[in-house]
Amino acid sequence: MFEIAVPQIDQVVHDILDSYHQLGGINHIGGPNLPSQQRIVDILQALRSILFPGYYERDPVDETTLLYLIGERVAWVCKSLTEEITKSLCHDCRLENRCDQTAECAEKARHIADDLVGALPAIRARLHQDVHAALDGDPAAKSEAEVIVAYPGLTAITAHRIAHFLYERQVPLLPRIMNEYIHHRTGIDIHPGANIGNSFFIDHGTGVVVGETTIIGRNVKIYQGVTLGALSVKKALAQEKRHPTIEDNVTIYAGATILGGKAVIGHDSIIGGNVWLIRSVPPFSHVYNPAVSSEPIVESNNHGADFYQI
Amino acid sequence: MFEIAVPQIDQVVHDILDSYHQLGGINHIGGPNLPSQQRIVDILQALRSILFPGYYERDPVDETTLLYLIGERVAWVCKSLTEEITKSLCHDCRLENRCDQTAECAEKARHIADDLVGALPAIRARLHQDVHAALDGDPAAKSEAEVIVAYPGLTAITAHRIAHFLYERQVPLLPRIMNEYIHHRTGIDIHPGANIGNSFFIDHGTGVVVGETTIIGRNVKIYQGVTLGALSVKKALAQEKRHPTIEDNVTIYAGATILGGKAVIGHDSIIGGNVWLIRSVPPFSHVYNPAVSSEPIVESNNHGADFYQI
Amino acid sequence: MFEIAVPQIDQVVHDILDSYHQLGGINHIGGPNLPSQQRIVDILQALRSILFPGYYERDPVDETTLLYLIGERVAWVCKSLTEEITKSLCHDCRLENRCDQTAECAEKARHIADDLVGALPAIRARLHQDVHAALDGDPAAKSEAEVIVAYPGLTAITAHRIAHFLYERQVPLLPRIMNEYIHHRTGIDIHPGANIGNSFFIDHGTGVVVGETTIIGRNVKIYQGVTLGALSVKKALAQEKRHPTIEDNVTIYAGATILGGKAVIGHDSIIGGNVWLIRSVPPFSHVYNPAVSSEPIVESNNHGADFYQI
Amino acid sequence: MFEIAVPQIDQVVHDILDSYHQLGGINHIGGPNLPSQQRIVDILQALRSILFPGYYERDPVDETTLLYLIGERVAWVCKSLTEEITKSLCHDCRLENRCDQTAECAEKARHIADDLVGALPAIRARLHQDVHAALDGDPAAKSEAEVIVAYPGLTAITAHRIAHFLYERQVPLLPRIMNEYIHHRTGIDIHPGANIGNSFFIDHGTGVVVGETTIIGRNVKIYQGVTLGALSVKKALAQEKRHPTIEDNVTIYAGATILGGKAVIGHDSIIGGNVWLIRSVPPFSHVYNPAVSSEPIVESNNHGADFYQI
Amino acid sequence: MFEIAVPQIDQVVHDILDSYHQLGGINHIGGPNLPSQQRIVDILQALRSILFPGYYERDPVDETTLLYLIGERVAWVCKSLTEEITKSLCHDCRLENRCDQTAECAEKARHIADDLVGALPAIRARLHQDVHAALDGDPAAKSEAEVIVAYPGLTAITAHRIAHFLYERQVPLLPRIMNEYIHHRTGIDIHPGANIGNSFFIDHGTGVVVGETTIIGRNVKIYQGVTLGALSVKKALAQEKRHPTIEDNVTIYAGATILGGKAVIGHDSIIGGNVWLIRSVPPFSHVYNPAVSSEPIVESNNHGADFYQI
Amino acid sequence: MFEIAVPQIDQVVHDILDSYHQLGGINHIGGPNLPSQQRIVDILQALRSILFPGYYERDPVDETTLLYLIGERVAWVCKSLTEEITKSLCHDCRLENRCDQTAECAEKARHIADDLVGALPAIRARLHQDVHAALDGDPAAKSEAEVIVAYPGLTAITAHRIAHFLYERQVPLLPRIMNEYIHHRTGIDIHPGANIGNSFFIDHGTGVVVGETTIIGRNVKIYQGVTLGALSVKKALAQEKRHPTIEDNVTIYAGATILGGKAVIGHDSIIGGNVWLIRSVPPFSHVYNPAVSSEPIVESNNHGADFYQI
Repeated sequence: MFEIAVPQIDQVVHDILDSYHQLGGINHIGGPNLPSQQRIVDILQALRSILFPGYYERDPVDETTLLYLIGERVAWVCKSLTEEITKSLCHDCRLENRCDQTAECAEKARHIADDLVGALPAIRARLHQDVHAALDGDPAAKSEAEVIVAYPGLTAITAHRIAHFLYERQVPLLPRIMNEYIHHRTGIDIHPGANIGNSFFIDHGTGVVVGETTIIGRNVKIYQGVTLGALSVKKALAQEKRHPTIEDNVTIYAGATILGGKAVIGHDSIIGGNVWLIRSVPPFSHVYNPAVSSEPIVESNNHGADFYQI
Repeated sequence: MFEIAVPQIDQVVHDILDSYHQLGGINHIGGPNLPSQQRIVDILQALRSILFPGYYERDPVDETTLLYLIGERVAWVCKSLTEEITKSLCHDCRLENRCDQTAECAEKARHIADDLVGALPAIRARLHQDVHAALDGDPAAKSEAEVIVAYPGLTAITAHRIAHFLYERQVPLLPRIMNEYIHHRTGIDIHPGANIGNSFFIDHGTGVVVGETTIIGRNVKIYQGVTLGALSVKKALAQEKRHPTIEDNVTIYAGATILGGKAVIGHDSIIGGNVWLIRSVPPFSHVYNPAVSSEPIVESNNHGADFYQI
Repeated sequence: MFEIAVPQIDQVVHDILDSYHQLGGINHIGGPNLPSQQRIVDILQALRSILFPGYYERDPVDETTLLYLIGERVAWVCKSLTEEITKSLCHDCRLENRCDQTAECAEKARHIADDLVGALPAIRARLHQDVHAALDGDPAAKSEAEVIVAYPGLTAITAHRIAHFLYERQVPLLPRIMNEYIHHRTGIDIHPGANIGNSFFIDHGTGVVVGETTIIGRNVKIYQGVTLGALSVKKALAQEKRHPTIEDNVTIYAGATILGGKAVIGHDSIIGGNVWLIRSVPPFSHVYNPAVSSEPIVESNNHGADFYQI
Repeated sequence: MFEIAVPQIDQVVHDILDSYHQLGGINHIGGPNLPSQQRIVDILQALRSILFPGYYERDPVDETTLLYLIGERVAWVCKSLTEEITKSLCHDCRLENRCDQTAECAEKARHIADDLVGALPAIRARLHQDVHAALDGDPAAKSEAEVIVAYPGLTAITAHRIAHFLYERQVPLLPRIMNEYIHHRTGIDIHPGANIGNSFFIDHGTGVVVGETTIIGRNVKIYQGVTLGALSVKKALAQEKRHPTIEDNVTIYAGATILGGKAVIGHDSIIGGNVWLIRSVPPFSHVYNPAVSSEPIVESNNHGADFYQI
Repeated sequence: MFEIAVPQIDQVVHDILDSYHQLGGINHIGGPNLPSQQRIVDILQALRSILFPGYYERDPVDETTLLYLIGERVAWVCKSLTEEITKSLCHDCRLENRCDQTAECAEKARHIADDLVGALPAIRARLHQDVHAALDGDPAAKSEAEVIVAYPGLTAITAHRIAHFLYERQVPLLPRIMNEYIHHRTGIDIHPGANIGNSFFIDHGTGVVVGETTIIGRNVKIYQGVTLGALSVKKALAQEKRHPTIEDNVTIYAGATILGGKAVIGHDSIIGGNVWLIRSVPPFSHVYNPAVSSEPIVESNNHGADFYQI
Repeated sequence: MFEIAVPQIDQVVHDILDSYHQLGGINHIGGPNLPSQQRIVDILQALRSILFPGYYERDPVDETTLLYLIGERVAWVCKSLTEEITKSLCHDCRLENRCDQTAECAEKARHIADDLVGALPAIRARLHQDVHAALDGDPAAKSEAEVIVAYPGLTAITAHRIAHFLYERQVPLLPRIMNEYIHHRTGIDIHPGANIGNSFFIDHGTGVVVGETTIIGRNVKIYQGVTLGALSVKKALAQEKRHPTIEDNVTIYAGATILGGKAVIGHDSIIGGNVWLIRSVPPFSHVYNPAVSSEPIVESNNHGADFYQI
């Protein structure tokens, strides 16, 4: 017999199967399918191409046949999203040992998907303002087209407005997969739970983290490396507001960190780069690092030090 | 009739079409094609494989037939780049309401593409120095091959030297699409406008931002999270120098932020990690955070505090 | 003759070939094949699907045929990994002018690949703890499934445990290609040389850098933008311990930077966000920025300053 | 220089280029693009899926969104077909040394493509009869679905009705590419020029050849290997009727050959298998081989002849 | 509104939808999915690679891991075949207005798929004899490998033995899709219903047709263009034996046609090329065309007749 | 343990492995790789695009860069063909129990591949004549382009001239794989061994079979369904001339069959459709079926016979 000659590989395979037996919870064997990450990415792309028609296509979009192009995409999104939401809901049912009534999950999923496509014109109206916030907020931005094709911040807020819509309707897992895909593409990690107002602009964006219970007002601008995070990571606090509130017209510069559910940044404030802030500040505040306002420590050294000594 | 039965989807589709009608500027319907993001990525890959032959190929590169391999790639790049530059120029013409003479744009595009491939040996000579800057600058780098296949900083500077060449010849949009692709791949966001000298080395690189009017000298080294940014984001300042100048032989450590068009970091200086700097420093300066040079605040606490209290 | 008509392209191609002649070291022409980046990515994906079966598949994984599915994957990984390790070893041999005995390299490669698949159950046991560290450490994490499909920190530590295994067996280049792929996907850059204990959790992760000689204990938690780096980048120090040691039960918040091979963070310590640290601290320390503990500088300004003046 | 070392390959390449110079007519260098064979195949597939919705799709076709699905396909076919017809017309213009006015060709192409999609309902009505001719004509056919998904004869007549429509409007090359694709898929070679009536059924079909000037009436049935060909292949006869006329309700069995433009097979006739016929027969004829009607030559031989001697 | 401007396309689309409404039977809208032709092709390929391991693979097949490779393929075939058989059975239920109990169809489908994979060793034993029949029967055949990779007759009989297995278990549609795929690939059209004995060899094969109720004994050899067909195509005869019986050790040369359910070709007979036969012949018969045994009609003509006159 | 629960699949898999053990010769397990069918198809496509540049490409072929395009293809063909010929030779060595010296096979393979590409200009000169033979021989042919893109006969003779070149240099298996691929695409089955003169034209072609030891002169024309075959299929005759000789300027019409190694069709002869011929005919012969020259049997029957009775 052929397979008798290969004790080593056989042993390894059996050990791995044993490991599945002994260490449960990180297998997903024999259960219903999880939502497909690839399909969710495809849905996001389709939604982007509905929201900003003509910018992400290989071929020019023709006005005379737009009805069919958009209709076909909307129909596909409805159907695919219903399927993926159903899988997300079923997975959750099973986790919570509630009855696993797929039909009920599918019905609920269909309603949510219908609601989402119904909300696309409203979402598009908000994204229109987000595009203009970028165009107004960055002297380097030359046109709306540049913002739409080359600003990762717009990619992130577009996906977030969709993921947040689903999060609010208690869809598990799927909105998080959307946001992690965007995190991967842009380096911007906005939890689907975050509540973000109109005319939002993130510039550069790499390293931005916005936590689940963050509330952000209108006309807010944030730069790369900004964290809006939690002070405590006690599991028991999962249901409470753990992340800050940013009021209207606030700008937060690169690398600033604002932590805690009770921190409120009053409207029209500016938070300087690398600032570390764990309490509220009133409206119209300017907050910056003391190190910067005082004399910086500079020692001129002209004997060619070849490494960094401090 | 079939379609009569579906008021809901039909309504959604018509609402979306209405939205295109009412919120212009973020549609691109019925106009000339924009440059293709996928094609631009393919051009970048082809250029990388011309500049560093044999490192990114599936099959070994054979010396005896190198002429044809390289010739074929150069020809493809010339042709494809001409097409994409033409689309970029046409899009701009239309925006500025100048005459939309495609033939003229195509002619101009062809010259620029020809110039770029003509400049490849010179670009390659500079990248040779960039590779050696990485090899000399990182004790963990074991070989040139490792730098070429596994250093995102080299990926970024390679693309930048190409994008900057096109930016200098006033190609709109396309250089920005190149830099955003590289931003996505590496987390390094260098605006195509930045002027960067020889032997440039970025280590790790995630979160690096280098603004449009930055000037960087020779032999400069920067680490992850460094921002060379603008102090003001007034739209009116778009034509001015808004970002710093870094002279030769400067090293800038992780997370440092240098802002403003008048800030000049004198040659042979070292800027410490997380430093926040908005003014010039003379040559041979060492700049670091006061918090670090003074006694750091450490309170030993042996009763097992389980969360972070400050 | 056709080709006579094209002096310009011909000239460019010949100049590029000349450039290969004159600037060696960054060509790889006529030599043995380097390890394939695409293949290495495929190997990582296959290993992930062995370690967490059912989470990354398009189709549900069926218990009754799991033996074959896993056996087939293990066999493919063994074979493919042997090939790629062989190429890595051969490339190294050639660099060091040692004899280029491919057969010997292939034999060594096969042993290493066999060892790796043999170690998969043990690696899986450690990853089981890493998943639980994430679930326990983040109030936003709702289920093991969410951690496995949507936490980039888990993606990074999974790949690292594999890459580190190969690094310890002196496989050149290949582990670095693995880690750069993961760096690209997640923004987390852990050098394969780093030694990391059980129950490790990275949240968000963008911008994290962990250096080659770092040692990390058990139950350590780190956040986005944390650097565990070197103080000096003198090439001569390549063989020494250049990066810090983090003992058990330490938490390091976003943006903190710890540098130097002699820095030891004592067990059960907490390092605050944006802290810059280049020396050791005792167990149970709490370290944070003075700027934060003292009164932050806030100046309320209600006349609507429209740019950031500090 | 690298390329100097490879005289052999260089010589070969130069000899091939010389060959292009010396043997023209079978190069197509530097001219306008020919119609794309792949695109033409895609157009055929799209038309098939419009004509028989739901039979060739991966996903079920949903009644509620059929409008968009069909609209999108029709729009794509219009656009793609216009492009490919334009290329066909331009190629012809160039051959005939007529002015090469691409715009005029494109305008003409657009009209033809519009006419074709406008004729789809009428074509579909004819195919409906062809499906039923197969269902009625073959005892082995179990359902309309079987005819549509598994009868190569239907594939062939579907493509022919489209190709013939284009042939009649003097589109060069493209209808022939369609018919050769179908010839490849089915072994049935119907020249686009053939004029074929309703309720046409080809069973099995391999080896069927129907010439350019053939006329076929209604309700005709033909089997594999039937040739409806020309008697003469004098080039001078290209403008004349060279192939036979088959009147209504004729059946032609496997391997029969009918040749010549003057041969008319009268209505309601039956032509037997392997019959060779080069003249007309009146209505209601039965034609068969004399060899079959007379006693066949059979010699019983029971001493086990081991090869075929006649 | 955008879509108002396009009456022409809109009209076409609506006419096509009307056509679906009026001409039913050739739409498949809103119903359950039909079996997927692509999936059925994939199943056939997988079965071929199980039956002849190592001949159709890109990579060498390794003995030590064969268990997993084969196990994985068998598992995939079981699962995929169950799905496609289920679709075939459901489609049939619906046609016959029987209750559409998908669960029952799926259960039945699973049993049939299990039976098929259980029969693979037996099928393989028969194919072993078919390979040797080809090797023995064709002087041009150089090796078993050549027969397996380059004889379309083997491709056809391999698929037929599978399709016939399913046909016998009353699976509708699917076996016909298999046989039409093979008809397309090879020009050989064997109806799944045909009953074919061991050691069957088809040489060249283009144009071979073997009807639904044909019975073929052991050790039969047939050449290109042979038809084993029906005399009558009256629909009413669908349940009767309409095609001939070929006993053991018969050879049928190219282009011969044997028709009718009562025709029995006695064992050890030889049927000559192009013979037309509609009755039985006894064992050990040699049948050939009278035209060939008598003097052929040859008229030598040395005045260069330039076309074919007979 | 997971796998214990699945006796049925396990049993099947083990039975299949047993079958491999017991029925050898049709496994290819653990041996060297066979030539890759896909790769051979790719090589044929590349050769076609070298021989007829510009006809099979997606993009127009540009004169100014033709050198590189062709050079790159020639280099790829050389390399790939060397690899596939090597595998063919090694497979043969192993079959014949000769020493399995791969290096020697590879060296021989390289010479053959070099010879083939060196012969491309000469092959192209012959194909030029074949194209013109088609253009002259078919009144329906409108242009050289139509012959090149839409005549399967040209596809077949192009591949044959290449396969025959390799056959003559004793390459096993590979030329047969080429010819079977073309057989599949066109229905034309020309054994690589056949020796075919210049200006050869096959029209329609489905069902044509040309045997291994056939010799065909110049200016020969054959139609669909023509067989040039062997009289005997005794294995012992494998080394003898078993197939006919066709002299210059012969035309053979559809369905004719000429058998036997001693049959010589004298120059300038015409063989009629469906003729069956097993002996030689002198030059300038016209051969046709007696059935056709005598009065055909036609019985007019106007009482509507509804099936074919003879």
